[in-house]
Amino acid sequence: MKEEVRVFAPATVANVAVGFDILGFAIGAPGDEVVARRSGAPGLRIVEVTGDGGKLPYVVEKNTAGFAAARFLEQLGETDVGIELEIHKRMPFGSGLGSSAASAAAGVMAVNALLGMPATKLESLHCAVLGEQIADGAYHADNVAPSLLGGIILIRSNEGLDVHSLPIPDELYAAVVYPHVSILTKDAREVLSPATTLRQSIQQCGNIAGLVVGLYESDYSLISRSLEDVIIEPQRSQLIPGFGEVKRAALAAGALGCSISGAGPSVFALCKGAACAQEAAKAMGAAFDRFDIPNDTYASPINREGAKVIASR
Amino acid sequence: MKEEVRVFAPATVANVAVGFDILGFAIGAPGDEVVARRSGAPGLRIVEVTGDGGKLPYVVEKNTAGFAAARFLEQLGETDVGIELEIHKRMPFGSGLGSSAASAAAGVMAVNALLGMPATKLESLHCAVLGEQIADGAYHADNVAPSLLGGIILIRSNEGLDVHSLPIPDELYAAVVYPHVSILTKDAREVLSPATTLRQSIQQCGNIAGLVVGLYESDYSLISRSLEDVIIEPQRSQLIPGFGEVKRAALAAGALGCSISGAGPSVFALCKGAACAQEAAKAMGAAFDRFDIPNDTYASPINREGAKVIASR
Repeated sequence: MKEEVRVFAPATVANVAVGFDILGFAIGAPGDEVVARRSGAPGLRIVEVTGDGGKLPYVVEKNTAGFAAARFLEQLGETDVGIELEIHKRMPFGSGLGSSAASAAAGVMAVNALLGMPATKLESLHCAVLGEQIADGAYHADNVAPSLLGGIILIRSNEGLDVHSLPIPDELYAAVVYPHVSILTKDAREVLSPATTLRQSIQQCGNIAGLVVGLYESDYSLISRSLEDVIIEPQRSQLIPGFGEVKRAALAAGALGCSISGAGPSVFALCKGAACAQEAAKAMGAAFDRFDIPNDTYASPINREGAKVIASR
Repeated sequence: MKEEVRVFAPATVANVAVGFDILGFAIGAPGDEVVARRSGAPGLRIVEVTGDGGKLPYVVEKNTAGFAAARFLEQLGETDVGIELEIHKRMPFGSGLGSSAASAAAGVMAVNALLGMPATKLESLHCAVLGEQIADGAYHADNVAPSLLGGIILIRSNEGLDVHSLPIPDELYAAVVYPHVSILTKDAREVLSPATTLRQSIQQCGNIAGLVVGLYESDYSLISRSLEDVIIEPQRSQLIPGFGEVKRAALAAGALGCSISGAGPSVFALCKGAACAQEAAKAMGAAFDRFDIPNDTYASPINREGAKVIASR
């Protein structure tokens, strides 16, 4: 029996240009860490939170990771077990990289691992989504599912968590840049028109279907042609200073496609090959530099593991 | 060198519930036949048209099959070769089963086969789409591509004919019922609102992506869950008397899903297994019978061959 586990859950890119609310993938870094430790006193407690600038509550029912872990313990019928949680935020809030989703995924995974994995990751997903919901307001798995499960995840329907792992072509890499500007998820949602045209809807359907085929066939050219968001990006990109220039820089560096990560302000690119991803990340960072916007860049393969135990005793 | 070829091109189901304008598949029957025969006199002529009730023009440039064949000969640089065409309509106009598309596909394929296949089917597709365009008004490959190529075809973008053959699960069968009521494609288009909601668009994206995954994974349950059209069917089904009852009959017979074929009035169902498809076809026909609407029913595997030579000398 384990006394303590430390879990890492990765940042994620949701929407992926053509899968608003229904598509996401995990990246190598950054990510959050949650420690779960057995305690003599029954019940779940949050005993330490770091890296949050004092913003996160210690109250289990108000904390993303705590709420998710508590619901998961209820699902297991293990509400009497004594567990202490430490939450170590290692990624920024409001970055568009699924910060709250990573905490929720890590919280559920830490408890699951501490108890010897009584549930599969998929069986624990619902609770992780509930955890993110208290931060985001919506029951959406497009960040939580890839953070927990890893890979590229299609959520056909969020309501029933109809989730599917898509194939990952061997040379598919991601580049991400997080510019230090603030966009609230709420504002990013409010800028979106609730209406689309039939023509846009047809184009988006063609592109997401094309993307899925491209992933199954490892057809990088098709993936590239399919990564064109005709609905969300034109509306949201106005919230990200320099977006047009950043996107042009990524494409000039050879990226297959480039769009907004989640609700932004982070921007992602998909690339064929590690070298291209590094070039694209560098180019996107340099473009934000030209707008005097401090930024962090990341380049990695698609993260296939999702939330995982990185230490235990 | 061949003197004469007779080509069959199958009927097709376009839209397939969740792929309006961008998805279609071919069925076993009905279909059109076109004969191409060498002639001493240079140029392309239509010498016989049957089964059309006198509706189709003999003027090459005004006839779907003729226009497509003429453009294809231009593409090949073979405008001087003497060719006579016979066009035998073996399927109804305005059925929603791609009648004009089958003629265009058969016309192009007949000329291609007569000349010894100087072009691949894919290379001839553009000309077949041009042929259907003179009947339908729009440059859409969702009937022509499956009629010519066979199988289940995704057209990511009609503009560039970015077409992709999707995998066909072994036990996937189609049932189709053609009720003898008249709907003009033009009317079926005019009933559609040019606007959709973002929510509908997201659902449709999730469903078409889910359908593609279901086809790749032979996941019949996922195929079934994905065959839900939240945009077109609710608007167009009002044009088809008894549609709700017909759909309920198909689902009660075990169909995976059921929706309108193309612009209607035909209705299709996808099924797991030949027996289920036969049951669904029968049940849909019986439902139209209860509305005193004469109808024809068809059940077949997905047609993998598309347009093909059925006789030659």
